[in-house]
Amino acid sequence: MRELIVELGERSYPIYIEAGLLDRMATIFMEHAISKKSPILIVTDTNIAPLYLSKVEKHLQQYGFIVHSAVVTAGEAAKSLTNLESLVGSALEFGLDRRSAIVALGGGVVGDLAGTLAATYMRGISFIQIPTTILAHDSSVGGKVAVNHPLAKNIIGAFHQPQFVLYDLNTIQSLPLREVKAGLSEVVKHGFIWDESFVSWCEENVSNLLQLDAESLGYALYNGCSVKANVVSQDERENSLRAILNLGHTIGHALEAVAGYGELLHGEAISIGMVGSAMLAVRYGVDEQVYTRTKALLEQLGLPTSIPAHFDVDAIMRAMMHDKKFREGHMVFVVPTAMGTVEIKENVPVSWVREIVEQLKREAS
Amino acid sequence: MRELIVELGERSYPIYIEAGLLDRMATIFMEHAISKKSPILIVTDTNIAPLYLSKVEKHLQQYGFIVHSAVVTAGEAAKSLTNLESLVGSALEFGLDRRSAIVALGGGVVGDLAGTLAATYMRGISFIQIPTTILAHDSSVGGKVAVNHPLAKNIIGAFHQPQFVLYDLNTIQSLPLREVKAGLSEVVKHGFIWDESFVSWCEENVSNLLQLDAESLGYALYNGCSVKANVVSQDERENSLRAILNLGHTIGHALEAVAGYGELLHGEAISIGMVGSAMLAVRYGVDEQVYTRTKALLEQLGLPTSIPAHFDVDAIMRAMMHDKKFREGHMVFVVPTAMGTVEIKENVPVSWVREIVEQLKREAS
Repeated sequence: MRELIVELGERSYPIYIEAGLLDRMATIFMEHAISKKSPILIVTDTNIAPLYLSKVEKHLQQYGFIVHSAVVTAGEAAKSLTNLESLVGSALEFGLDRRSAIVALGGGVVGDLAGTLAATYMRGISFIQIPTTILAHDSSVGGKVAVNHPLAKNIIGAFHQPQFVLYDLNTIQSLPLREVKAGLSEVVKHGFIWDESFVSWCEENVSNLLQLDAESLGYALYNGCSVKANVVSQDERENSLRAILNLGHTIGHALEAVAGYGELLHGEAISIGMVGSAMLAVRYGVDEQVYTRTKALLEQLGLPTSIPAHFDVDAIMRAMMHDKKFREGHMVFVVPTAMGTVEIKENVPVSWVREIVEQLKREAS
Repeated sequence: MRELIVELGERSYPIYIEAGLLDRMATIFMEHAISKKSPILIVTDTNIAPLYLSKVEKHLQQYGFIVHSAVVTAGEAAKSLTNLESLVGSALEFGLDRRSAIVALGGGVVGDLAGTLAATYMRGISFIQIPTTILAHDSSVGGKVAVNHPLAKNIIGAFHQPQFVLYDLNTIQSLPLREVKAGLSEVVKHGFIWDESFVSWCEENVSNLLQLDAESLGYALYNGCSVKANVVSQDERENSLRAILNLGHTIGHALEAVAGYGELLHGEAISIGMVGSAMLAVRYGVDEQVYTRTKALLEQLGLPTSIPAHFDVDAIMRAMMHDKKFREGHMVFVVPTAMGTVEIKENVPVSWVREIVEQLKREAS
């Protein structure tokens, strides 16, 4: 079993990565002293519930845990305050108290929604993550949880670290190929910002990754989580360094907002955003090879690298103005300085950004 | 000017208490390095807005701050997720970013709602409290913020400490007498749990307090805040000691929930709850004088000490089962051990609680 510790002082926690963990996780719950007297609430979605929910419930019940569940409709739209209110209602009806735990069984959306519930219910109770997607390797490190507002994504939330994360590699096997690719987008992002050798490894292992070879997948997830854990350990609350994790997110979030949640998967939007950031890097004088290599790897992974033709440039620019990374009137971007390293530019001219958005859109036609 | 530091390590903050602070607060904003580049959002309610909002806005604008405001309908019902969502919308439209501050101008309800906004907007931004009620002396110490769910009060929230608290004693002068009394309920609570000499001082100064004599009021608020600051400093996240602040709240919250928010003021409900806790103390063998003195002081302050006859005992008991303090199936109560000290009883028989609720109700008829 691969085990990685996210170092955050008294909030440190382990990530366990292995095939088959769902069948033996009760032991891990007990090692972490999860209460058997207070009810546990599993939050999952309509995609994941039919696959794993009853298995997980029965397994935990067998070991004496009191288990309830709540199932939300799959998709980004689930991250709403309306769903949060309804989950709080369920938690109250099931009698969850301060020693209870919320378990997120699913991808990033479920993790965010369940995490926001855990962060705010009774002002914060225990949180356990069981990611079932590749993309969720990202959100399982660092404790950022949030729900959406009609005007902006991830705008209402908290920093709330889990007690532990259980990654059962078998759950990845049931993912649709489109989601596999979108998940790999954030995996390679961790290479782009921190680790050129991991980028090279990804370039050599594209087909293993797309075929979900267990050993390659475990290696990629472990490395993706490691980069993120490294960054987060140094800057838990995103005062400075942590912002480098937002590579591709300024444009990416705007695309998601404009598309209406759902048309573009998060990883797809980020993929386009990372190409945009690489273009920006070239503007700042970075070797053009950073742009060509970034784009090539994302294309090989089957990810989009341009903005679909029907998107409106003005709408994208407006959406960026609502982004959290828009600070005191300047545009803030994470920009590569070479393959495997990035820096934060606090003062990017809005006109440059507009030109890049237009270019990204032109390339689609 | 009275100044009290709430000691919480890197989250420590001062409470400034003085008449006339609203007229010179910009200086304090600058001392605390509140940004003049990022917009500030003042949250207030329909009672307070006509009295102080334009004054506060103009004063801050004069010193170069960018100021926006949002006004919610006065009353406990304002503490809803619906209002939170609408405030997040306002914050986005006004362009609040991570360096912005949320200012709560008003009583406990405004503080809770604005505090929850500050705690969750972009996962947490700066928060400044300007309490305008006596009751809010309580919520201005310790960073507990929350909104309500239809099934339970204060169930969705966070611990989010303010940057500083400004208590302008002049604002208290505009309070209706009923709210003055309800506020004094929590002031004397701090005496009951921690400081017999402060209880004695209150007993001797009932009429000064009810007449809002500035010197007496300043002394009482400073002492109430001090007790609370002492407790919170030792236990920020309510793992143990901090729970003693809930004296009177187990029954009190249930009464508020059953009454429909608004029929009973919070301080009134807590007053009845504190009488109930004193009854419980007698059951546990504590000197009956604790009960008679508690009840007498609350009566002199013009506060209710029995449950109105139309309340349903079953409904009250049910509401208590949803309370955060109902832990792993036992009833948890804060119970006096003498005048000026309390302890937490984790295992109170439900039958005793029911008998006390019935007795509190009988005394009303």
